Amino acid sequence: MTHPLFEQHRATLEGALQAIATRGYWSPYTEMPSPKAYGETAAEDGKRAYEAHLGQNFELNQPGQNGWGGNEVSPYAGALDVRYPLCDHEVLIEAGLAAMKGWQAVGAAGRTGMCLEILARLNRQSFELGHAVMMTTGQGWMMAFQAGAPHAQDRGLEAVAYAWREQSFVPAEAIWEKPQGKNPALVMKKHFELVGRGVGLVVGCGTFPTWNTYPGVFAALATGNAVIIKPHSNAILPAAITVRTIRAVLAENGIDPNLVTLCVTDNRSTTQALATHPSVKSVDFTGSNVFGQWLIDNCKQAQVYAELAGVNNIVIDSTSAYKAMLGNLAFTLSLYSGQMCTTSQAIFVPAGGIDTDEGHKSYDEVCADLGKAISRFLSKPEVAFAVLGAMQSEATTDRVAHANSGQLGAVVLASQTLSNPDFPVAQVRTPVLLACDAADEPAYMEERFGPISFVVKVADTAAGIALSERVVREHGALTVGLYSTRQEVIDAMTEATWRGKVALSINLTGGVFVNQSSAFSDYHGTGGNPAANASYADSAFVANRFRVVQRRYHV
Amino acid sequence: MTHPLFEQHRATLEGALQAIATRGYWSPYTEMPSPKAYGETAAEDGKRAYEAHLGQNFELNQPGQNGWGGNEVSPYAGALDVRYPLCDHEVLIEAGLAAMKGWQAVGAAGRTGMCLEILARLNRQSFELGHAVMMTTGQGWMMAFQAGAPHAQDRGLEAVAYAWREQSFVPAEAIWEKPQGKNPALVMKKHFELVGRGVGLVVGCGTFPTWNTYPGVFAALATGNAVIIKPHSNAILPAAITVRTIRAVLAENGIDPNLVTLCVTDNRSTTQALATHPSVKSVDFTGSNVFGQWLIDNCKQAQVYAELAGVNNIVIDSTSAYKAMLGNLAFTLSLYSGQMCTTSQAIFVPAGGIDTDEGHKSYDEVCADLGKAISRFLSKPEVAFAVLGAMQSEATTDRVAHANSGQLGAVVLASQTLSNPDFPVAQVRTPVLLACDAADEPAYMEERFGPISFVVKVADTAAGIALSERVVREHGALTVGLYSTRQEVIDAMTEATWRGKVALSINLTGGVFVNQSSAFSDYHGTGGNPAANASYADSAFVANRFRVVQRRYHV
Repeated sequence: MTHPLFEQHRATLEGALQAIATRGYWSPYTEMPSPKAYGETAAEDGKRAYEAHLGQNFELNQPGQNGWGGNEVSPYAGALDVRYPLCDHEVLIEAGLAAMKGWQAVGAAGRTGMCLEILARLNRQSFELGHAVMMTTGQGWMMAFQAGAPHAQDRGLEAVAYAWREQSFVPAEAIWEKPQGKNPALVMKKHFELVGRGVGLVVGCGTFPTWNTYPGVFAALATGNAVIIKPHSNAILPAAITVRTIRAVLAENGIDPNLVTLCVTDNRSTTQALATHPSVKSVDFTGSNVFGQWLIDNCKQAQVYAELAGVNNIVIDSTSAYKAMLGNLAFTLSLYSGQMCTTSQAIFVPAGGIDTDEGHKSYDEVCADLGKAISRFLSKPEVAFAVLGAMQSEATTDRVAHANSGQLGAVVLASQTLSNPDFPVAQVRTPVLLACDAADEPAYMEERFGPISFVVKVADTAAGIALSERVVREHGALTVGLYSTRQEVIDAMTEATWRGKVALSINLTGGVFVNQSSAFSDYHGTGGNPAANASYADSAFVANRFRVVQRRYHV
Repeated sequence: MTHPLFEQHRATLEGALQAIATRGYWSPYTEMPSPKAYGETAAEDGKRAYEAHLGQNFELNQPGQNGWGGNEVSPYAGALDVRYPLCDHEVLIEAGLAAMKGWQAVGAAGRTGMCLEILARLNRQSFELGHAVMMTTGQGWMMAFQAGAPHAQDRGLEAVAYAWREQSFVPAEAIWEKPQGKNPALVMKKHFELVGRGVGLVVGCGTFPTWNTYPGVFAALATGNAVIIKPHSNAILPAAITVRTIRAVLAENGIDPNLVTLCVTDNRSTTQALATHPSVKSVDFTGSNVFGQWLIDNCKQAQVYAELAGVNNIVIDSTSAYKAMLGNLAFTLSLYSGQMCTTSQAIFVPAGGIDTDEGHKSYDEVCADLGKAISRFLSKPEVAFAVLGAMQSEATTDRVAHANSGQLGAVVLASQTLSNPDFPVAQVRTPVLLACDAADEPAYMEERFGPISFVVKVADTAAGIALSERVVREHGALTVGLYSTRQEVIDAMTEATWRGKVALSINLTGGVFVNQSSAFSDYHGTGGNPAANASYADSAFVANRFRVVQRRYHV
């Protein structure tokens, strides 16, 4: 059984299947916001489309609506003044369940084809989505466009490809013929139906409202489930645009659009009621450890896929490219003011210093040189504003002030407050870099989300590797890095990351950064340490979202 | 990277991969205990091998041993008087973790090759295992041989095939090359390491100590984990034989045999400590709802794959083969005295009776005729003893006595106590068949493990289908059946099973029975209703048992 949209997008699907198997670079969605890729008027059209939402009711025609709500405050521009439908979550669940029958009936090919069509439509909305992500999260424009649109679409497509691969293994039917010696064989016909498990709840975060949401949305959808997106209360618009497009594609193709709905609520108890509802069978969550652990502990009826906090770290042993290393780190620590789940927080440097192509550098020199590299990188305001973006939340701004006070460690480089003339309300902060001793565990060994990093003095490289492993095991990490010119050190760190189950970037000195992961090639999170119990994406991310129901009879 | 044992068993693996994809009949392990398949002396050798264990210490050379224990009482023969090593479970965990490094290093091909070799060795021990299963569980010989040896090996091989398929998707390395317009491309080399998650605990049951244990053992093992088997206290020997063989194959191939150990304990608190240990990352369990739910509620550090109790049921609407239907049901209800997780417990029959090829039959006639069919089927003692086996536990015997008393419903056919001259101590019971009304929910709507079934009077077929669906949703089921000559009824029941997520057998009148599932073709359990949260086997059964840890660097 196939479907016209499956055939139409077959090349994209096959590209994705090839990419997840070979893991080279690949993407069907151009990451440059160029007129050549997106059309001459795309940039202007997208900006206007974004602006057209402001001050309006965002109509979705969802069932169970009992009002309008939403109160997003843009880090760049104050109140967005967009109002979203408020709907009874029980009604959304019932409507989603009712829509699943038709979604099941189109089969895996139909679902996959429609998901691919949705992604193609979202790709055409990339400028609109980029602006929505920028204005709700405080990301700089280029990052908001790339991470918010094409890269998020990549992650969605990746999930669709995994879902298709797993579903396509199950044949629709089979003849089972068992020989019986001299007697006639036993012959049965069997049918195998792919059935979604129920409603998939996807809880978004405030910093990456599409990139961290699309994997769960498309994994759940492609495998036959209804989806309810509960966006972060300050990043609703990107989710609302996404839901509207999904609903449009579904309706155009004869599927009840209530399969996918937006649940806007400020009320944590509503989210909790949703997450623990018997009909909700999966919960995808990105956010704090506290609520993530609550979900894991309480959602016994659902599979929870959670990306939580961690303490990403880097061990510096030695380098043959000191300047390039510092430049690479400066970019990583500055990007989006470190408001990424992949930003490095702790940098372990031996007390005796490190060997470099510029001679031996003491621990203090490494601290100072890294501080200078950050200052130099951000010295041009246009670069600083583009890279740093704005503080997404007051809590992060407060954490920066706390770190600046020197209470967490010696201030190597203080965070500066910048004023962005294009966005006067934006809170812009440069990174704060602190120095501390390995023994100062309370300082660096919990996630301090935002542009706050520690150069931690360790006894030697071996101690740094051991500490990195312990941090990963106990507190989790999505990324670790290593700088070393010695193979035995690289091998030791590699083995430590196998035990701790964390992705390792080695000697990054060029245009790839430890905080970036590339869809189809890099696994984002291993699912094997406390920072995340799942990975974007692998078979485990999709395989348990559907079930096979068989029937058999004699023929 | 390959491995000599992988190459040696490649044809078996490829057969299994083909079988799970096409789901026709296939097995590499002959189910008939024939000299042609197993060798002229195999039957005698296997019996002697079994007998040689009796009255002995079963040496396994495991670490942390602090005594001998085990106190199995055979349903056929009284005390087995075999003593097994009692080992500190913390020591077993540490030893398992230490052994994982070498197991990881041989890669998926090495692990798969060794698992295939283990299964081949176990197959050669099929007679020994068959006797061990028969004497510990009370199964009849033929069933003990088939389900205990070749069919269990099939299920193990099936898990190995799924594990290989998922692991083989992950390339060992990749070159990632991202174009940068006119600038040189960014090029990175990436490595992807498959890493087991930790210790896999497999908790066995008393009735199917190998068939229900091998899927979890081989899924965990093949994906790189250490395994601790905690057998049911009355069915240790089949697990001990299995563990000894696994350890021998591992040691012969340079792997620390402590990767797989047997943990014998009567102490539930030890099992609980094991199951909640931070290093235990998966728990495979077959058994009671009470302990299964405890595991699901408490093992937050592990993925729990649980097969629990259910209320399997059958809807009878009409049939074109009344006698054959009754004969098929009589066999199902009698096999191993209904001590199977797949035995039908509730048979829903319309109050107005059913249309058959022998004319209309009233509800009372269906009850009576089914009772007669069971009596007739078991009228020859040699058939009865072979099919019924013996009561595995006193609790089951007590449940039969309770049902016989008429307190649960009108007794259509009382259970009889038979005396097996070959095994005078064996408690042999024929099935008890009760009649009750749909409203008598407390009677038939909880699992009454053993040869206890209810013919439940429902208003009509539609009511029967609705009741079946509700029972499946609320109480779970591994199997449901339907007898109907009308396509619209078959369609309605099919849709009910999609919603309830349970496997359906339609109009079974020949040599296939609703309580049987065939490896590589039938999914045992869907994982979508309360009777089981996982299936033997599918991708979801293996995909979350390993993680991918990557590293990357510029080239």
